[in-house]
Amino acid sequence: MNRREFNLNLLCAAGAFALTARQSSTQLRVNGERVNRHLSELSQFGRTPEGGTHRLAYSEADLQGREYAMKLMREAKLDVGIDAAGNIVGRRAGADQALKPLVIGSHIDSVPEGGNYDGDVGSMGAIEVARTLAENNVSLRHPLEVIIFQNEEGGTIGSHAIAAGLTEKELNLVANSRKTIREGVKFIGGDTDKLSGVVRKPGDIAAYLELHIEQGGVLYAEKLNIGVVEGIVGINWWDVTIEGFANHAGTTPMNQRRDALLAAAKYIEAVNRVVTSVPGRQVGTVGKIQAFPGAYNVIPGKVTTSLGLRDLDAAKTKMMFEKIQVEVQGIEKETGTKFEFKQTNMTPPAPTDARVRRVIDETAKQLGFTTKFMPSGAGHDAQELARLGPVGMIFVPSVDGISHSPREFSRPEDITNGTNVLLHTALRLDGMKLS
Amino acid sequence: MNRREFNLNLLCAAGAFALTARQSSTQLRVNGERVNRHLSELSQFGRTPEGGTHRLAYSEADLQGREYAMKLMREAKLDVGIDAAGNIVGRRAGADQALKPLVIGSHIDSVPEGGNYDGDVGSMGAIEVARTLAENNVSLRHPLEVIIFQNEEGGTIGSHAIAAGLTEKELNLVANSRKTIREGVKFIGGDTDKLSGVVRKPGDIAAYLELHIEQGGVLYAEKLNIGVVEGIVGINWWDVTIEGFANHAGTTPMNQRRDALLAAAKYIEAVNRVVTSVPGRQVGTVGKIQAFPGAYNVIPGKVTTSLGLRDLDAAKTKMMFEKIQVEVQGIEKETGTKFEFKQTNMTPPAPTDARVRRVIDETAKQLGFTTKFMPSGAGHDAQELARLGPVGMIFVPSVDGISHSPREFSRPEDITNGTNVLLHTALRLDGMKLS
Repeated sequence: MNRREFNLNLLCAAGAFALTARQSSTQLRVNGERVNRHLSELSQFGRTPEGGTHRLAYSEADLQGREYAMKLMREAKLDVGIDAAGNIVGRRAGADQALKPLVIGSHIDSVPEGGNYDGDVGSMGAIEVARTLAENNVSLRHPLEVIIFQNEEGGTIGSHAIAAGLTEKELNLVANSRKTIREGVKFIGGDTDKLSGVVRKPGDIAAYLELHIEQGGVLYAEKLNIGVVEGIVGINWWDVTIEGFANHAGTTPMNQRRDALLAAAKYIEAVNRVVTSVPGRQVGTVGKIQAFPGAYNVIPGKVTTSLGLRDLDAAKTKMMFEKIQVEVQGIEKETGTKFEFKQTNMTPPAPTDARVRRVIDETAKQLGFTTKFMPSGAGHDAQELARLGPVGMIFVPSVDGISHSPREFSRPEDITNGTNVLLHTALRLDGMKLS
Repeated sequence: MNRREFNLNLLCAAGAFALTARQSSTQLRVNGERVNRHLSELSQFGRTPEGGTHRLAYSEADLQGREYAMKLMREAKLDVGIDAAGNIVGRRAGADQALKPLVIGSHIDSVPEGGNYDGDVGSMGAIEVARTLAENNVSLRHPLEVIIFQNEEGGTIGSHAIAAGLTEKELNLVANSRKTIREGVKFIGGDTDKLSGVVRKPGDIAAYLELHIEQGGVLYAEKLNIGVVEGIVGINWWDVTIEGFANHAGTTPMNQRRDALLAAAKYIEAVNRVVTSVPGRQVGTVGKIQAFPGAYNVIPGKVTTSLGLRDLDAAKTKMMFEKIQVEVQGIEKETGTKFEFKQTNMTPPAPTDARVRRVIDETAKQLGFTTKFMPSGAGHDAQELARLGPVGMIFVPSVDGISHSPREFSRPEDITNGTNVLLHTALRLDGMKLS
């Protein structure tokens, strides 16, 4: 027992039962074979011929996956229910009735033609943590909640319902399964008339921890075990329209053209140049493009395209956008075109809690793992929960950085490692004064 | 009368009547007010709210325009008929029964939402030439044929039927009017059972002359009156597929991406650079593009795009394509992508006849006009007729180089000038030994 653990024990000295549990708990390990087996069993629901998963929120496969997860949660001695928003919530009582719950979880819905790890690892990992605690009769001071949030891939809908509530507009959105969110919530056992009952206030959770695959290739490339997430990057999307002049591709000399697609090409290169010329882990992506009229034979008079910028630092994103604007002005002049940017999404960065980060890092190192502090480039339920209390995220390596693909893969040993970090981070946080 | 004209007169001394006509004909001028009025009247058939023309081949508007043209041809004392391929042919006897016809003409069908000048100028101009000859009792040695070719915009179908014949495959193509070529030919009064009767052999025409708007902006920008067309450029189209790797736009670091759209951007710039770095009037265009999956959120794993190269010189086109391939190899290496080119069209260049070019140039200068030798970047019926005998094309300026647009415009005085050049070029050619 090191000095820090001693201090932690002092902190929770109030609960003698908990103290006993903690003393034995440093040697506690999850069942790695089991969590990986559960992951493999879960992958059967919505399996695709390529070996991936097509488990869209509110689909039959989603329903089957949820049934399976609830069975595992009951086996982990959790008190399982579906909240009005359709989230699966498994509860375990804590020793101190006054404390707010420690929440762990993730999601099991997938993108179309997705993989078997995104969301699933954190969901199966959280259930494994609860089961390990139960099997070893470890009592926590805080109540523990394992939550499988519904429809994360459709815009963190389930966690948003808890952290902020769902608007009428959001309920009317059509999900990938072709159901509206409203229809979807009913389909999976929620009750849209009682949504206000699931909304929580800041301070209503002690902390939220989420285990997840990195989805990028940094940990894998650098041969590291655990990513300590510094925060979920802000996501900014723009629709970009470029107006040139459509004309006959045969008769219009090169120097008399106002080619919107040539302007778009220069723009796409400029985005890449601006984003890669600044130090840091920001990303910039042009993912959409359409040329009008779109024929071999006609110089494109109009192009619609996009811009996506992500970074943990909103000021840096602003700076990159401004640099891109300067480049665009030069392109407009050079090509005789006109650009217009219309912002369609602006999700602010959601930093994780500094103390939680520190605990994850120390816990991982004590378990013998190498770590790296890193941003999460993808959105996660944790960004919603950050409205309610301190959050932390634990990343495990994605082989070759592939995600949202049947080729998504994380090694079983990495999943076991991550689940052990989740377990011991929860145990440590349980001993801390969190709010 | 200059020495050349004297020689020409010697050449046609055999026909005394023709000689008389030629002596008076140097002062002959078309009725500029009339040809421009006819152009304006023709523009009513298929008129669009924007003031352009939507006169798709085989449409009602096409039928009405054709009726109007036939009325004008009869007024020009032509013997008018519709051939089995649906072309309108107006004949005028020549003094020498042994000679093959001198053919002048163009088309009156338009692209979707097109303008009032492409094809129409040459069609109304040819009829005006016939009418001027008739009004002034000028007899030619050669028979004269004024042909309004059907469906030029759909791939020079009518002229192809005369110069090469239509295959079953071509007859089954669906035109912009949603009719097949077969249905269209019947709709406009042709007879697809008798198509073999319209096919002509090399040597079956004395020459073909076509007046046309430039459709580019060279003559207008350089303030010149008449373009002497050196030939119709070869047209080469390729479908281009770029394979990268689709991945999460938030989690994949910039230096781990294989972004097919970034590769496409570099390719589009490379095409522009290669085409503009060689002296000459060649053009290169990337007109089509699609990114997959095409979301804000996903690095494009695949892009389909195109390449169009046009030049009078097939060897130069080949050289440009090879230079683009070299650039593409660099882009593949730099971006971790793979390009594939599949040629979808290869229309060889169709040079005009050197003697006819010279006659057009001299005729235009004698009429007091400035001239420029230039390629035609667009395809024309003349490229089909070039299989049968010497062809020449006369261009008049397009204001701002706009074509295939309601904003297509050529000034009335330029149209009158061009029609006078057509008239006097025909008169000169009539005096020459052409085959």
